[in-house]
Amino acid sequence: MTELEATVRRLRDASGTVAQLPTTIKNDVLHDLADRLEREIATIVKANEVDLVTARDGGLGEAKLKRLALTEQSVRQMADGLRQVAALPDPVGEVTRDDRVPSGLRVRQVRCPLGVILMIYEARPNVTVDAFALCFKAGNVCFLKGGHEAARSNAALAELIRASLVAQHVPPDALALLTTSDRETMKRLLSMEGSIDLVIPRGGIDLIRFVSEHSRIPVVKHDRGVCHIFVDASAAMDQAIEICATAKTSAPATCNAAESVLVHDAIASSFVPRLVKRLRDDGVEVRGDAGVCRLSNLVVPAGEDDWGKEYLDLVLSLRIVADVDAAIAHIRRYGSNHTEAILTSDEATAERFTKSVQASCTIVNASTRFNDGYQLGLGAEIGISTSKIHAYGPMGLTALTTQRYVVHGTGQTR
Amino acid sequence: MTELEATVRRLRDASGTVAQLPTTIKNDVLHDLADRLEREIATIVKANEVDLVTARDGGLGEAKLKRLALTEQSVRQMADGLRQVAALPDPVGEVTRDDRVPSGLRVRQVRCPLGVILMIYEARPNVTVDAFALCFKAGNVCFLKGGHEAARSNAALAELIRASLVAQHVPPDALALLTTSDRETMKRLLSMEGSIDLVIPRGGIDLIRFVSEHSRIPVVKHDRGVCHIFVDASAAMDQAIEICATAKTSAPATCNAAESVLVHDAIASSFVPRLVKRLRDDGVEVRGDAGVCRLSNLVVPAGEDDWGKEYLDLVLSLRIVADVDAAIAHIRRYGSNHTEAILTSDEATAERFTKSVQASCTIVNASTRFNDGYQLGLGAEIGISTSKIHAYGPMGLTALTTQRYVVHGTGQTR
Repeated sequence: MTELEATVRRLRDASGTVAQLPTTIKNDVLHDLADRLEREIATIVKANEVDLVTARDGGLGEAKLKRLALTEQSVRQMADGLRQVAALPDPVGEVTRDDRVPSGLRVRQVRCPLGVILMIYEARPNVTVDAFALCFKAGNVCFLKGGHEAARSNAALAELIRASLVAQHVPPDALALLTTSDRETMKRLLSMEGSIDLVIPRGGIDLIRFVSEHSRIPVVKHDRGVCHIFVDASAAMDQAIEICATAKTSAPATCNAAESVLVHDAIASSFVPRLVKRLRDDGVEVRGDAGVCRLSNLVVPAGEDDWGKEYLDLVLSLRIVADVDAAIAHIRRYGSNHTEAILTSDEATAERFTKSVQASCTIVNASTRFNDGYQLGLGAEIGISTSKIHAYGPMGLTALTTQRYVVHGTGQTR
Repeated sequence: MTELEATVRRLRDASGTVAQLPTTIKNDVLHDLADRLEREIATIVKANEVDLVTARDGGLGEAKLKRLALTEQSVRQMADGLRQVAALPDPVGEVTRDDRVPSGLRVRQVRCPLGVILMIYEARPNVTVDAFALCFKAGNVCFLKGGHEAARSNAALAELIRASLVAQHVPPDALALLTTSDRETMKRLLSMEGSIDLVIPRGGIDLIRFVSEHSRIPVVKHDRGVCHIFVDASAAMDQAIEICATAKTSAPATCNAAESVLVHDAIASSFVPRLVKRLRDDGVEVRGDAGVCRLSNLVVPAGEDDWGKEYLDLVLSLRIVADVDAAIAHIRRYGSNHTEAILTSDEATAERFTKSVQASCTIVNASTRFNDGYQLGLGAEIGISTSKIHAYGPMGLTALTTQRYVVHGTGQTR
């Protein structure tokens, strides 16, 4: 047995125990870990500094360095996050159906953990703690593979997680870190469909493609977000300017940031120049179609590859469309099943839009940035699924479980 | 564009229309089809006879010939099945959550179709009609690939389905049949993850393995059922004999038939001889472990490969186990995540069993054969999923949909 297979075997063995842990023990682990993180801030930040130096020397860009960095404040945020997950209701054991069928059988559906979850993500060490907390609270064990640039940070965090597990007499094999990135190891891992129950790839298009291509394990993708905002002729102007601008600028590197604004032709001549000015003032580069370019000289002409592009940066594409149907057609072609917004004061138009676009979340008269587990009331999320299967949109605790049937009879045969 | 790609493109294009069909139109199609099947019984049975002759000449076994055969009665059953699906509530548009979050947003989750579903199944022409009906009622279009032995029967049925679609002004491309079985075509199809939303393979282990290995499309497996019954020391004897015998004999080729019985050591000397006698009387070959062989001379000694085997025939394996924990350990090793039953009058033992075995359905004091969509109150099913992701157990109409978020705001930004 290789080391990889031995690790997966240990996770599998631990999963039976973790699935049956009482809620109090799971919460004790999360609280213990929160306290431990706060006690060990210095250790964590020191490990992270080594990662940062190496990554900076290796030429990692500023945006990615920012996501890699841990500070006293971000460690305290992780600790708070753990306490929030501890406060959420435990989904395991929840009875979602309980009735009697004509044969006299009592039929229940009961939430249970998925088992072993493999998650592959970027060099963001806070995700290591978040992902562990959500998987564990939902009764799962997890195998985490974060970006290699965060190796030392993740190792330091995993050591603390294991210490918290041991302190509450839970098998430390409820968590393992995969420290190699080589493709052959990944392929072997992705073929272990009998031992791993779910793989969640989160990140770049190449990673998602590699996982879909090689995985025999079920995959729930957290793919890119090409989010559009359609500004209808009936939209409230000032509000629309505010929503479009902040949906781009408040967190440009997140998957729910707006990447493209479509403007109804009837209001383009007044709306486009105002929006472009606001965006330019906020430091955003605007790439516009021919009509937009005619209305403003502050824009860069958009190329065909600007449509459907996830900039993850202070860049936005802007297009004039004939009407809501043209907006829907554009989104059908270029959207990514993530988040699509319409700004309108006409209810029928809003309904036509929300019924016709394909997205895990369609939003009327608010920013695309609300497609988020916290904002939509899930308490926490492990990411935003763009797969329609199993979970679509923000994935919270219940999406990390499944439902099984438990049936009681009195001797029924058929 | 190849013919295969053109077909998938037509399905994709039709899926937008089918997703938005009103319930009445969908039900009209199903009723029209039910009437049409009954009018065309002669045509269907004639097409099926050609399939049967070819299959018999090709050496297809009796059990499989029986599943391939269509009679006046089975066509009438299909028609009744269609009327039952028409009578079920439409899952599309169902609002499963509707509340307001602190930002003031109104957050709803709404059921919507998955889109394009590829289903691969055995040479059972009745499945063609059932699968179409369920996919269509849930707002999906489907690409069906039945066993090649049923080619003419399926073509005849598909022609009637298309006629019913056209009669209600629904795009006939709501259904396509894949008529080739070659592996290269299947591989190309399974790589179309942008165009097909779900693949459901149902059937032999080789098919399931081929699909898991090559599919980039999400897969919900309908894998084999290695179903056990554990007879506890406290079980009601007569009832246990009845349940064990009928769970094998009432439909031995179905996935929810019992394949293996585990008997508590404390009652083995009285129970085993009685059960073996009953099974032998019912024409069942019993393969027993050493302890069983000592108690009865009517059994064949079981080999290691009898444990975990899906016979799909009048054969059953029988083993004596020390207690419920030994039964759980046996099932952990040999079960297939399908159906596991315990017969006991002790509630604590029942709970220990139902909490510890992994199965889409655990059953206390009733036959394994109740793990079935109709029996569990789903109205109908497209099969029984052994995947924990998306749907676990019988897959009814709602499992052929997903839930998306629809959010209404009043200008919120973040």
